[in-house]
Amino acid sequence: MRRVRAGFQGALGAFSQEAAYKLLGPQVEVVPFPQFEDVFRALDRSRIDAAVIPIENTLAGSVHENYDHLLHFDVRIIRETNVGIVHHLIAPEGVRFRDIRKVYSHPVALNQCLRFFGRNPKMQRTTFYDTAGSVKMVMEERTGDAAAIGSEVAASIYRGKILRRSIEDDRRNFTRFFLLNRAKQASRRRSGGGPWKTSLVFTTRNTPGALFKALSAFALRDLNLTKIESRPLHGKPWEYLFYLDFLGREDEARVQNALRHLTELADFLRVLGSYPRGA
Amino acid sequence: MRRVRAGFQGALGAFSQEAAYKLLGPQVEVVPFPQFEDVFRALDRSRIDAAVIPIENTLAGSVHENYDHLLHFDVRIIRETNVGIVHHLIAPEGVRFRDIRKVYSHPVALNQCLRFFGRNPKMQRTTFYDTAGSVKMVMEERTGDAAAIGSEVAASIYRGKILRRSIEDDRRNFTRFFLLNRAKQASRRRSGGGPWKTSLVFTTRNTPGALFKALSAFALRDLNLTKIESRPLHGKPWEYLFYLDFLGREDEARVQNALRHLTELADFLRVLGSYPRGA
Repeated sequence: MRRVRAGFQGALGAFSQEAAYKLLGPQVEVVPFPQFEDVFRALDRSRIDAAVIPIENTLAGSVHENYDHLLHFDVRIIRETNVGIVHHLIAPEGVRFRDIRKVYSHPVALNQCLRFFGRNPKMQRTTFYDTAGSVKMVMEERTGDAAAIGSEVAASIYRGKILRRSIEDDRRNFTRFFLLNRAKQASRRRSGGGPWKTSLVFTTRNTPGALFKALSAFALRDLNLTKIESRPLHGKPWEYLFYLDFLGREDEARVQNALRHLTELADFLRVLGSYPRGA
Repeated sequence: MRRVRAGFQGALGAFSQEAAYKLLGPQVEVVPFPQFEDVFRALDRSRIDAAVIPIENTLAGSVHENYDHLLHFDVRIIRETNVGIVHHLIAPEGVRFRDIRKVYSHPVALNQCLRFFGRNPKMQRTTFYDTAGSVKMVMEERTGDAAAIGSEVAASIYRGKILRRSIEDDRRNFTRFFLLNRAKQASRRRSGGGPWKTSLVFTTRNTPGALFKALSAFALRDLNLTKIESRPLHGKPWEYLFYLDFLGREDEARVQNALRHLTELADFLRVLGSYPRGA
């Protein structure tokens, strides 16, 4: 049997890779890509079977670029999961903590360790395109005064030594990931217990109370929103696309009714997927 | 009479500087800062009289970091303006278009000129922390094969030559800027014609239909929302702060009623400012 090939953005050892294992099991074949757009394009062109993308972090907020890609590519959200983000200070064997002057990582990771940098003012924060990529780089360059901030998996893959564990400011640091298929791909529906979520994107007519009316389609049916995100509508300055997540499964009667109601109110509506709620 | 000192993020020649002139007139003294947070802190500590910050762009979306700063610093929005963003390809005198191999600018600016890069595949996009700063840098370095993407004002300040004008993909490219004072600063209220906007931030109780009910405070009084933005609420994973803009002036009776109604529904509410709607 052929292994499922799942694409993600970043170097091997990225948090997205951990999410891929959580979503698809340890037998999945992971395929790294440099940019988010590359992952979506590879899925679109059937070069991979699935994509794993981060959509929001409890501290940094939404990954807005991926909201845009969800609209522009014909994909379907089939699962979600939340991954706890723990940052370690990683350096090559032999580098001592007190010798470190430069610390590389993705700007979001660096910004999540500000107290650590406050306590260690000699260490200069240096932005890198990717957390796992920064670990790979410091392990290859071995300058003797450089470390990176990355995950346990990245430390293990690139054989780095963890000098300080869990240096993030806030332990309530989680990233939510989506597992995507092509919209036309047959997906085995997982049924069974527990709540489901549905995600959609719509535009309202530019009239007073339009968003309020759109939300009434859900509120009047006791469908609980879990997220709303707005993105600019290109070509119509100061108008917006709205992305909603709510608790409910697309094939439930009241969800069908809500979607029919929203169709009356929206200029544009697309369901992005219906999937079991992540733990 | 002492000139008003207005802080902004970026190098001299940034679009924020243009916004400062639109908001405060040509006699304003502009003070550049490296980071957005530095601008807010300088205002907070009375080192400047006002701050000019971008809040959203019609193509790239919200400047989420500044939404976070609006919450964390005790500031007040007193005006808004929209600036048309036009990108030029700028290089030192003597550099020919066909010699250019590297083009520097802020990632948002580079991403707004993708068709230009599609037509000129030999030019490598290179990210820089700031548009005007990238113009300054290529003018100082003069490598002979580098150009920058920046504004007319940046070209003029750093004496760069504009090799190609208006290379952005979409002409409907505007950035909305806020003029901020300290919350306790006396501000002369501009009255008179034209509609006003009010901006606020709130959190809802984590109950079904909470956002819908919050929006009812405005919809029931025919107050038209112009923007909603959500940001993660730190310390409460998967809960959000909501930032709203609506048409109306804080001292109008129906706005006062809406705010009183919202206070009943919200765990937290702060009005960020009430200001004449920008052109």
